[in-house]
Amino acid sequence: MDQLHREERIDYITQQLHIIQSKQVFSFSIDAVLLARFTYVPITRGSIIDLCSGNGVIPLVLSTRSSVPITGIEIQPTLVDMANRSVHLNQLEHQIRIIQADVREKSLKNMTGQADLVTCNPPYFATPGEKEWNENPYLAAARHERNGTLEEIVEAASHLVKPRGKVAMVLRPERMMELLELFRRYRIEPKQMKLIYPKEGKDANILLLEGTKNGKPRLRCLPPLTVYDSNGNYTEEFQKYYDGK
Amino acid sequence: MDQLHREERIDYITQQLHIIQSKQVFSFSIDAVLLARFTYVPITRGSIIDLCSGNGVIPLVLSTRSSVPITGIEIQPTLVDMANRSVHLNQLEHQIRIIQADVREKSLKNMTGQADLVTCNPPYFATPGEKEWNENPYLAAARHERNGTLEEIVEAASHLVKPRGKVAMVLRPERMMELLELFRRYRIEPKQMKLIYPKEGKDANILLLEGTKNGKPRLRCLPPLTVYDSNGNYTEEFQKYYDGK
Repeated sequence: MDQLHREERIDYITQQLHIIQSKQVFSFSIDAVLLARFTYVPITRGSIIDLCSGNGVIPLVLSTRSSVPITGIEIQPTLVDMANRSVHLNQLEHQIRIIQADVREKSLKNMTGQADLVTCNPPYFATPGEKEWNENPYLAAARHERNGTLEEIVEAASHLVKPRGKVAMVLRPERMMELLELFRRYRIEPKQMKLIYPKEGKDANILLLEGTKNGKPRLRCLPPLTVYDSNGNYTEEFQKYYDGK
Repeated sequence: MDQLHREERIDYITQQLHIIQSKQVFSFSIDAVLLARFTYVPITRGSIIDLCSGNGVIPLVLSTRSSVPITGIEIQPTLVDMANRSVHLNQLEHQIRIIQADVREKSLKNMTGQADLVTCNPPYFATPGEKEWNENPYLAAARHERNGTLEEIVEAASHLVKPRGKVAMVLRPERMMELLELFRRYRIEPKQMKLIYPKEGKDANILLLEGTKNGKPRLRCLPPLTVYDSNGNYTEEFQKYYDGK
């Protein structure tokens, strides 16, 4: 089961954590790791659901911070298989399972209102016309919301999370207004925001947002984080945050 | 006219710019200066309106960046008088006039849809119960929205600004959700946001927001700014931004 398929390779997320990736299909981004560092996690009790799990990077990183069961939901069978092989590679079958499902499916209703935390690194771009879709169907699905709009994802997150539970997502700041409005529309009150800047003097290019289901309005804007220094190396603060130190 | 009243003093905003203040009545905060540095300004053509002008700090700072007429609107006669004496002190009567008016007044309708820019440093706190109001009526009015709620102010700004004109406001980040929603409700699309942090590792405590009337959705999150260094001195980047350099 954990053998590598053609074009696949094993990468490190951190020193202790390995992940199977493929340029053909999917590679995790730092966005996903930052979300898994940023979010609240239930430590020993409760459960976590990760939507649009891809190759499972968020469940893998969350497992270093929590001992509760983590369910990853991913629509593409190829990625579900790849993610489960990564779970096996890290000997985390007791904690993480990745299942094949569509966030829009009624079957997810069995899990309604149960999770203490729902995370998601959703597709980044608003749905373009058919012609603009990337020719690579895996990348197209990841990028272009073919398998669920942002609204459908936020709606699913709201259904899956407990009252007073948390929902944490990562997105491009250009879509901040849309995400904030969707959170409120589905009764997830935005509570913490963190902006990530590629380097000093540049606009933010990553938005981390956490909300509480049925929470009271009061938003904290956490300290900013800058990824690269003027020499193009990771900043010390970024490396620490990424590594969870 | 420009003599100082009891308890008043002349302070510097910047080396060239003086302002009459009084601890009893009103002192400008760095928030107002940052807003006047942050915002777009029409340089040589058009007009600017500043709502809730207080002692006139925003019009005074904007006059260093623009030669267009600037109208400050302030409800409290004592502050209108103080602001106009500061205008005289800086010999800016040709550019700035501060008028006594309520942003909720119908009379402001004469100015509808004319300004290229509307600025406002509104009262900070949501309206508390009568008992919680500060006993000092000047401070109470400034802080507690006695003279206009945030919604009434945003509505007035939306009426006063031209189509495609700009509205720029400063507020505590805790109320970001409220301000973003009000901007959209009154058709001011949030376009630029800048968060100000008191010092490294702390949450943001000032939100600068600029929107475009009838603009298209796309929000930029500009580079963050940190006010104090670890020794409690202004950071170099803050001092430059504050001085408009």
